[in-house]
Amino acid sequence: MNDALVQAQEALALAKEAKFIANNMWLLVATVLVFMMHLGFATLEAGFVQKKNVVNILFKNGMIIAIGILTYYLMGFNLMYPGENEGGFFGFAGFGLTPPENGMTPAYADYTYWTDFIFQAMFAATCCTIVSGAVAERIKLVPFLIFCILFVSISYPITGMWKWGAGWLDARGFYDFAGSTIVHSVGGWGALAGIILLGARKGKYTKQGIKPIPGHSMPLATMGVFLLWFGWFGFNGGSVLSADPELVSLVFVTTTLAAAAGAIGAFFISYIMFKSFDLSMILNGILGGLVGITAGADSVSVLSAVLIGFIAGMLIPLSVSFFDRLKLDDPVGATSVHLTCGIWGTLAVGIFGQFDDPGTGLFMTQLIGVLAIGAFTFTFAFIVFFILKVSVGIRVNEQEELTGLDLGEHQSLAYA
Amino acid sequence: MNDALVQAQEALALAKEAKFIANNMWLLVATVLVFMMHLGFATLEAGFVQKKNVVNILFKNGMIIAIGILTYYLMGFNLMYPGENEGGFFGFAGFGLTPPENGMTPAYADYTYWTDFIFQAMFAATCCTIVSGAVAERIKLVPFLIFCILFVSISYPITGMWKWGAGWLDARGFYDFAGSTIVHSVGGWGALAGIILLGARKGKYTKQGIKPIPGHSMPLATMGVFLLWFGWFGFNGGSVLSADPELVSLVFVTTTLAAAAGAIGAFFISYIMFKSFDLSMILNGILGGLVGITAGADSVSVLSAVLIGFIAGMLIPLSVSFFDRLKLDDPVGATSVHLTCGIWGTLAVGIFGQFDDPGTGLFMTQLIGVLAIGAFTFTFAFIVFFILKVSVGIRVNEQEELTGLDLGEHQSLAYA
Amino acid sequence: MNDALVQAQEALALAKEAKFIANNMWLLVATVLVFMMHLGFATLEAGFVQKKNVVNILFKNGMIIAIGILTYYLMGFNLMYPGENEGGFFGFAGFGLTPPENGMTPAYADYTYWTDFIFQAMFAATCCTIVSGAVAERIKLVPFLIFCILFVSISYPITGMWKWGAGWLDARGFYDFAGSTIVHSVGGWGALAGIILLGARKGKYTKQGIKPIPGHSMPLATMGVFLLWFGWFGFNGGSVLSADPELVSLVFVTTTLAAAAGAIGAFFISYIMFKSFDLSMILNGILGGLVGITAGADSVSVLSAVLIGFIAGMLIPLSVSFFDRLKLDDPVGATSVHLTCGIWGTLAVGIFGQFDDPGTGLFMTQLIGVLAIGAFTFTFAFIVFFILKVSVGIRVNEQEELTGLDLGEHQSLAYA
Repeated sequence: MNDALVQAQEALALAKEAKFIANNMWLLVATVLVFMMHLGFATLEAGFVQKKNVVNILFKNGMIIAIGILTYYLMGFNLMYPGENEGGFFGFAGFGLTPPENGMTPAYADYTYWTDFIFQAMFAATCCTIVSGAVAERIKLVPFLIFCILFVSISYPITGMWKWGAGWLDARGFYDFAGSTIVHSVGGWGALAGIILLGARKGKYTKQGIKPIPGHSMPLATMGVFLLWFGWFGFNGGSVLSADPELVSLVFVTTTLAAAAGAIGAFFISYIMFKSFDLSMILNGILGGLVGITAGADSVSVLSAVLIGFIAGMLIPLSVSFFDRLKLDDPVGATSVHLTCGIWGTLAVGIFGQFDDPGTGLFMTQLIGVLAIGAFTFTFAFIVFFILKVSVGIRVNEQEELTGLDLGEHQSLAYA
Repeated sequence: MNDALVQAQEALALAKEAKFIANNMWLLVATVLVFMMHLGFATLEAGFVQKKNVVNILFKNGMIIAIGILTYYLMGFNLMYPGENEGGFFGFAGFGLTPPENGMTPAYADYTYWTDFIFQAMFAATCCTIVSGAVAERIKLVPFLIFCILFVSISYPITGMWKWGAGWLDARGFYDFAGSTIVHSVGGWGALAGIILLGARKGKYTKQGIKPIPGHSMPLATMGVFLLWFGWFGFNGGSVLSADPELVSLVFVTTTLAAAAGAIGAFFISYIMFKSFDLSMILNGILGGLVGITAGADSVSVLSAVLIGFIAGMLIPLSVSFFDRLKLDDPVGATSVHLTCGIWGTLAVGIFGQFDDPGTGLFMTQLIGVLAIGAFTFTFAFIVFFILKVSVGIRVNEQEELTGLDLGEHQSLAYA
Repeated sequence: MNDALVQAQEALALAKEAKFIANNMWLLVATVLVFMMHLGFATLEAGFVQKKNVVNILFKNGMIIAIGILTYYLMGFNLMYPGENEGGFFGFAGFGLTPPENGMTPAYADYTYWTDFIFQAMFAATCCTIVSGAVAERIKLVPFLIFCILFVSISYPITGMWKWGAGWLDARGFYDFAGSTIVHSVGGWGALAGIILLGARKGKYTKQGIKPIPGHSMPLATMGVFLLWFGWFGFNGGSVLSADPELVSLVFVTTTLAAAAGAIGAFFISYIMFKSFDLSMILNGILGGLVGITAGADSVSVLSAVLIGFIAGMLIPLSVSFFDRLKLDDPVGATSVHLTCGIWGTLAVGIFGQFDDPGTGLFMTQLIGVLAIGAFTFTFAFIVFFILKVSVGIRVNEQEELTGLDLGEHQSLAYA
């Protein structure tokens, strides 16, 4: 008997350890996948800008990930997950990282404290990367980097806390599985504030109408979309926060179907609108589908996922035209992808979401979440950009815009 | 005693769960890796075509993955794995996806039903992507997409079922571990049918002999090969259908060695044939090695893997020359890589394969499998392409071929 | 009672199996990530060379991985891990691979023998890839490949054994977690020997001063850095040699923070030195941070990791200028990244490292390791390059250098 008990206890401990190892590993793998999204954004944005602004966009993307990681280490993580202070509008657990005593054990979570930090840190930089695409080809480098530091270390974690840090939106039953609102629309609102204050690129909106300024490399842009899709398996799949076989595999299926349906939705609407097979539209359609499914990837049926993605894809050409009609110039379509489809995906949870708790993910709650986070983020971004605009200025001069930011800001060219 | 039993049962349940989590996770990771192969194909093909046809090939690759995923969801999966109807030439379990009751438990498999679907779905689109490279630079977009829908949703799953869905080839002892025949040569046969009916690109086979039409970007093509190799770890490694440490690690070793040996084989033969260090040959040599090892990656020795890959690599320059002599124009060498080496790899199982069951993987059975699947697939593809040819036409007009499909089909350029 | 014992034993066996599966899986995933570093090197180097030498650099990168894998299979693995002969300066366990009887069980390690081989094999080719960047644009292809064969199959595994194969440096308490010295500085010393014997590219060091020869594609170079960073999660994370949740996640955090801090360090120093926002500097700053943290990623605090990376990043512009002043021409900055920061990272373990055993990682021991491995490697590489130089020659002729190695060695162009 004694023998059996000893062995049973040993087996139990070992089985717990094996499960902890597996769960933690999945979060780490997901971290690596999400990291790849930064290369996805870098190549997507590089592909969609003109040749003369490529070094600049690559430089920004390199700096953003560095800034995002370091500020999240310094304060972002503790703003977003304030621990004991959780539950309201604002909380802060102090600067730097201090693992709790149980931080490396299953008592903390299905993963370690370090895993928790690094997985969330990879998300953080995303919100700035989204902005960088929209404001490309005309924003000054240093003011943009200052904006990024403030946006990612203050604005993003505060609104993120409202839901993921057990804040007031979480208490109300707002649902945003992996961040259609908390990550993507936040980036989109920041982008919108930026492009309003910056104005359009010279020559985009002329008396003769809207002049398309085509990106300099469609292979780069396409690569970017595939890399983003690749990373989204970690973004959504990791957001299960364990390697739960049923949930993670369901999330893989809904995510993939929505992306595929997004391509098809964009294909049809862009053909109807422009009578053309427009590569940039199906690329953004895929991204739109991915952003759209992100809020509800774990809580909608696979058929709903197809519908959500299809509608998101259809929204892309419509939204691009809409912003163009408002003369809001976004070289990469980031506002359409991340703001429009981020809102759509969050609201779609209120339509298609299936929850055990009847108070979770109600349409009105979803709308409140979208509006509250939108209002905070847009205001924050607008004020920061505005102060930068009236102080150091945020737009390069006309001459530099003409010759390109690569020569102006970096004294070098992307292609020698 | 009671305590011990309770704890032992708890431990057993937890250990089973941990193992299930780990196995399922590996399949999901493999899914992500296989997904990357689609970017690999996209960049490989984009690199090997002329600058004027790059948007077109990227557009096709974007649409193919979307079509492949959605049709596999709609009917492909249930055609390939018909369940109760398994065992013969044809079976169908109905439209859409309906997880069985035990679909999320180890009673279903070492992974969930959703994992099963998404892993297989990633494979499916591959067969069309292979075709897209071979028929590049002259095929009309819409007829090609129609071909893809039919090929991936009907032809591929039917022949796939013959082996992987427990069909008649499986019953005969035919062995194709991860799809040298079922995926790669199927794509190759479709490609062959396409290039026969399409004819060669203008200016390729002239009275002055064969004129090489070099690809527009060797970095893109090289990237494609590395990304495909990267994905192959999931393609072959995931085909173990569990995370079995011995088998998956063996498959990693055989796959890697065959790819490396493929490069060396192609290096020597292409140097002998062309007196030149031809990058495109060693790139396709790597791919040839990978295709070659795919049928037997789990059941040959590591030394055999080196030989299989080396021979596959040597076959590449020979096969490319062979198809050129027949004036079968394949801009990316897809028929040489996927058809020639797919056949070689399947037959190699009959030479080098080591099986417990003496009736498995016999050379004649392998040959029967190659021929049966080849005959079905080529016929299917030929008929579909032929009907499209005589109805809507499959080839762009001479003027469009000259100016490029990017302007002709998409009114845009890859590089602004 | 019997029942309980039986079930407890069953549970114990299953729990052990689940843990073994998970640990082994992580090593395999890490293998795939490290594989991607080869694409990272290929694109980084391709981006940093001139357009006329791109096919050549891609060809070399394709061949190096093939050579690295095959020679490691043939003899490298058994030189680096000589088993019973471990403990001294040289040992060899024979040609080819022979799994020990327990090679697929936890009695061997937390992973199988095949996993052991393939993970280590992915590292091996790295040392040559580092050299290939430094000697680019002027070295003859075949002599370079001969150098690679000797360097990766003899030099790299011998010095690697000194530490990782339980050799004399290991016995002395030298610490190099994942290879700041054993992999990166080894590559760096080989590179240094090569560029000394080769001489600078024509037109680099003129009477009018140092003339920058800008790389032909910054998107390619940027992609390379992101892919290397991506792969580094496997390079460092896999070097834990298990999926230990605490250690692997700590390594993820230190690795990421050091890379981010490297970008910032390079940003500031390059701005101070050149008054410019130099993309190539922050890219190499990221790599410098990664190389720097590699020796101590598991044994320094996260704050130390930030410092190590920051200093490594600052070293990049200083080191690049230093080598330029010595007229040691390195088109991609490989010596600064891998040699300078590799030495720094190894010494940093002696400053920041935290070990239970007081005799581990002492500064003087670290210095001895750096010098011993440096002396052996540099001498080996110098002799091999020297013999090649005086026999077949290692430098292309002036005409070929002018028109480019793509036409000279490959009769083809990277961009048609």
